Parts: sequence; structure tokens; C-alpha cells
Amino acid sequence: MIIDSHAHVVMTDELYRYMGELVASRANPAGPYSGIGAESLRAVSERLISIMDGVGTDMQFLSPRPYMMLHSIEPPKVTALWTRAVNDAIHAQCQLHPNRFRGVAGLPQFRTDSPANCVAELRRCVNELGFVGCLLNPDPTEGASAPPPGLGDRYWYPLYEALVELDVPALIHSASCCSPRESYTLKFINEESIAIVSLLESTVLQDFPTLKIVVAHGGGAIPYQMGRFRAWGERRGEDFDQKLRQLYYDTCNYSPEALDFQLRTLGVDNCLFGTERPGTGTVRCRQTGRDYDDLKPAIEAIAWLSSEDRYKIFEGNCRKLYRRAFRN
Amino acid sequence: MIIDSHAHVVMTDELYRYMGELVASRANPAGPYSGIGAESLRAVSERLISIMDGVGTDMQFLSPRPYMMLHSIEPPKVTALWTRAVNDAIHAQCQLHPNRFRGVAGLPQFRTDSPANCVAELRRCVNELGFVGCLLNPDPTEGASAPPPGLGDRYWYPLYEALVELDVPALIHSASCCSPRESYTLKFINEESIAIVSLLESTVLQDFPTLKIVVAHGGGAIPYQMGRFRAWGERRGEDFDQKLRQLYYDTCNYSPEALDFQLRTLGVDNCLFGTERPGTGTVRCRQTGRDYDDLKPAIEAIAWLSSEDRYKIFEGNCRKLYRRAFRN
Repeated sequence: MIIDSHAHVVMTDELYRYMGELVASRANPAGPYSGIGAESLRAVSERLISIMDGVGTDMQFLSPRPYMMLHSIEPPKVTALWTRAVNDAIHAQCQLHPNRFRGVAGLPQFRTDSPANCVAELRRCVNELGFVGCLLNPDPTEGASAPPPGLGDRYWYPLYEALVELDVPALIHSASCCSPRESYTLKFINEESIAIVSLLESTVLQDFPTLKIVVAHGGGAIPYQMGRFRAWGERRGEDFDQKLRQLYYDTCNYSPEALDFQLRTLGVDNCLFGTERPGTGTVRCRQTGRDYDDLKPAIEAIAWLSSEDRYKIFEGNCRKLYRRAFRN
Repeated sequence: MIIDSHAHVVMTDELYRYMGELVASRANPAGPYSGIGAESLRAVSERLISIMDGVGTDMQFLSPRPYMMLHSIEPPKVTALWTRAVNDAIHAQCQLHPNRFRGVAGLPQFRTDSPANCVAELRRCVNELGFVGCLLNPDPTEGASAPPPGLGDRYWYPLYEALVELDVPALIHSASCCSPRESYTLKFINEESIAIVSLLESTVLQDFPTLKIVVAHGGGAIPYQMGRFRAWGERRGEDFDQKLRQLYYDTCNYSPEALDFQLRTLGVDNCLFGTERPGTGTVRCRQTGRDYDDLKPAIEAIAWLSSEDRYKIFEGNCRKLYRRAFRN
């Protein structure tokens, strides 16, 4: 079974319309939102399934599209209403195709408001909608102002407590970026590096030994810049390579050489298949003739991986981490 | 000849004392600064030379120690006086051992003040002190407030004009970091990624075809995250791999696997030997038994490099870029 643990919901006309209304009116939309129509829902789900079938993906974990999470748009009610609508859209797709999709919740994070404010929506998604995890944005100011403390700080503990209690992983994934010098796609990478270092330099994983954190896109810059952090670790008598394996990483890394490098550096036991398809990588690569985010053949081409390794990456690690995904 | 293009001045008691006075008094030091004493200068230079000899380095390019550049400390006169003192200390070391050192200037960058303010000190260093390049910090706010525009912006053009006119390269290297969630060592990496993308998405290299930019530490996250940027490039009909080769990168990347990966991805013609030794990597690695920043054997161990490749990395590329370094 091929489980794509990192994929995002595809927008529909209804969602765009609601987003436009919410943003422009600053959470005073002219009329009530009535969700996605049955026809539109069927069309978008079938389109997504045909994209999955085209690359041999059996199941996708769907979360909100990160750059569209609106975490910094004033007032916070915009984010709150929008997050709920997107989570409901994901739920509707999961209900329509229960063998093909699982839901990963967006959280109504807002700038430097306490992450405790997100716990209610997380509980709703997990307990009422059957979601199996959530996204976690380390900088919900989206680069517009001073970000909240790093993920190693107690500031985030109310959320970690809920994640542990509900037994769901968080996927570290930033949202948009307001800074003209840093595109959202680059901010993803930088925020992942910051998140890893902040978590590993903190006591979070000692304080929450069952907390499961997945870092998107192969762990930002860290595997490539390992040497710097190994050297820091050495000074403290710590083995940075080992510490890194307290976290998990997905394979949304669209260069085959880098993917090979990632699996060697982070270890097969800590990497989960993820493609974000359709997304940034959904464009034909001239060299391979395949889309950049068609990562199954790229992983299958790595000769040193055993069939057991491949099973872990494509399915096994995901099943271990996302325990709610396969309960029935 | 082994030229280490990326090394930093070693602090002396006099420099620490002056820094302390300048910072505490906010540029109103109790007495005049009289430079480094002859004995202290001899001692620090000999210590540095013995560190170089220990790893087979013939020449080091010395610049200010980046995390000590004080680019965000109010008022800007602190930065201005301190930068001048450090550049003078570098010059003194170069004069004492003209066959072992070259000077790379610090610039008195201050928060969001125009980089035009740095041109006078750059000219002094190049024309009067014989320096061969300079550092360039993309975020002189040091994470304390909203950074200036990215390096692709015309904001930086007065500095680029001077660099081209003087025929000296700039080494992209951030300074300290005031944000509690991002250490200065991690900010280096993130700023390098931001700098590369900002430059390559701009017209800087068309507007200044002879501008030479070196990005420290193997180019931040970019080589590892190539796939994302290849995909964006593909959409625009651009070859991101080729674009990346408009810039240069040093080998201050302390993981041997990553160094191999770097040279494959960025190309032998675009990578210069650099170690930053003594610095972050000056600590014994348990696996190799050598210091992390002892990079010469790490590069020599890469079997696919030809002897011509090695010449380029250790010496040739540096000679081509830093033309003022070898005029006599």
C-alpha cells in the first residue's frame, strides 16, 4: 500500500468564494456559508483520485493547503471561520471516499495568540470528524511581525498536551509569508530548520515522550548542514545524528539525489512517504520525463533500499505514527 | 597552494576590551582606542598560523568574526567604530605575514540604513589597506526587526556599484541573531537560502554582469532543496541548476557526505575552499578523529574529483574570483 502522508485539499469554487468573502469583509460575510455542493465535491474528489491513480498512490492524507491558511489576516475570526470550513471540506472528501483519504486538521492559529486556542478545533476534528493528525505552523505571524517563541518553548505545551492525549502527530508546516524577501515556499524550508533545532535543544521530547512530530520536506536545511550541528553537539557531549531521529520527516523533497541523501542521513525508520501532489512539484521534469512530485519511482530507484525499507517508507512508518488512521 | 577563502580574525584582549567599552558606553568610550599591541598581535598571528599549518593551509582570507559584527546595536556609531577597529586588526595581521593572510573587509552595515553608507569603509579597506573582498550581511537588523529588502532589490545597488568598480567579491554572511528562536549559526544558513533565491529571481546579475557573489556554507539549504526550485524554474522556462552557477559557494560544510553532495550539485567550478577554522567546526569528530573543519582531507577523499578539480577548489577558483589577492 502506498500512503501519501503529505497532501493538501484541492480548492473548489465554493471555497474560493468563501475565502474571498471572509477576507474582504474581515469575517463579516454577506451570507452564511453552505459548504461545497455535492456535484463540486464529487468532481474535485474524482480529479484528486485520478491524480493519485496516475502515480500509484492508494491513500492520501489531506490537510489544508498551507499557503492558504490565512494565519495572519486580521481579525482572528477570519482564520477561525476559514479553518473550520476547510476542515469540513476535507471531512466531506474523506466521507465520500473512505478508502482513499484521511483528514489532517488545520488549526486556527493566529499570530501570537496562544496555541491553547486551537485545542477545541483539534478535538472537534479528531473526535467528531475522525481526523488522524494536524498541521502545526511555527510562525502564524507569517513573517508579518515578531514570531512566537520556538517550538521548544512551553508556550506550545497546551497544544502538545492535546496531541498526546488524542494520540495524533503534528506535521510541522508553515503557511504563507508576508515578507517580500522570503517566498512562502522558502519560508517552509527555513521554518523547518528552526523548528528542528528549537525542538532538539529543548526538553519537549522528554516532557512529552509520546509526542510525535513530523517535519515536512525532508527536514529543511538540517540534513545538508548536519556538520554544523554535529559540531555543536560534540561540544555538549551529544550525538546530533541520534537526536535527529527523535523526529520524523516526510519525503517531499523533489530532487532524487537529495532524497537519497535524506534517507541516508535521517534513516529509513524516520522517513514517511509524502508528495504534496498536486502542488509545487506538479510539473514535468525534463530529465526524468516525470513530474517532480512523482516520488514513488524516485524512491524505488534507490538501489540500496531493501524491500523492507521500502515498505517502511511507503506504508509502515506511517501506520506506526498515525495510529488513528487504520483503527477499523 | 591551499587557500582558505573563508576564515575569521581571532579576537585579542584589546579587541574584547574595546568592544566592551563601545557597546556599554554606546560609542562614548572612556579613552581612545590604540589598536592591538605588537606582542599581542604577534601572539595571535602565530597561533593562527600554527592552526593553519596543522591542517596544511597556506593562506587564509581573514574577515571579521560574523557573530561579533554588532550590526544592530544602537546607535550606528558603535557599528561604525567597531568595524573600523576590526578591519584595522585584520590589516595589521596581513602586514605582519603578507604571505599567509589577505584581508576581507567588514562593512559598517546598520539595521535598515542604506548600504551606500558602507562604501567609504569598503574603499578605505580596498584602496588603502589592500583588502581583497568584503562580507555582506543580508539582514543587519540581526533578526531584531523587519529586515531590509532582499539582495535582489535596488536598495543594494550603491554597494554593488562599488564592488564592481573595485573588482572585489562579496561573501554573503549574516551576523548575529536577536531572535530567541533562531541561533546565529542557523540564521547564517537561512539567510544564505534567502539571499540565493532573492538574487536569482532578480536582475542583479544582468545589471552587474561582473559582480562576484560568494555564498558561505555551501549555499544554505538550496542544494538539498533543489527540487522545489527546479520545479518553480521549470514553470518559468528557466533552468535553476544553471542559474545557481551564476553564484559561487564555499566549502564550509562540515559533513563529508554533504560536501560531496555540494560539489556534485553546485559544480566544481563554483566552489571555493573555505573552512572558517578556527570556528564552529573546530572540535574533534569522533568518527574521523579529525576536527570537523579540517576539510582538506575530506575533499581529498572524494574519489570522483580529478586533480584539476582539486586545484580549482583549493586554489584556482579563488584566484579567479579574488583578483586583487594575487596582483603582486
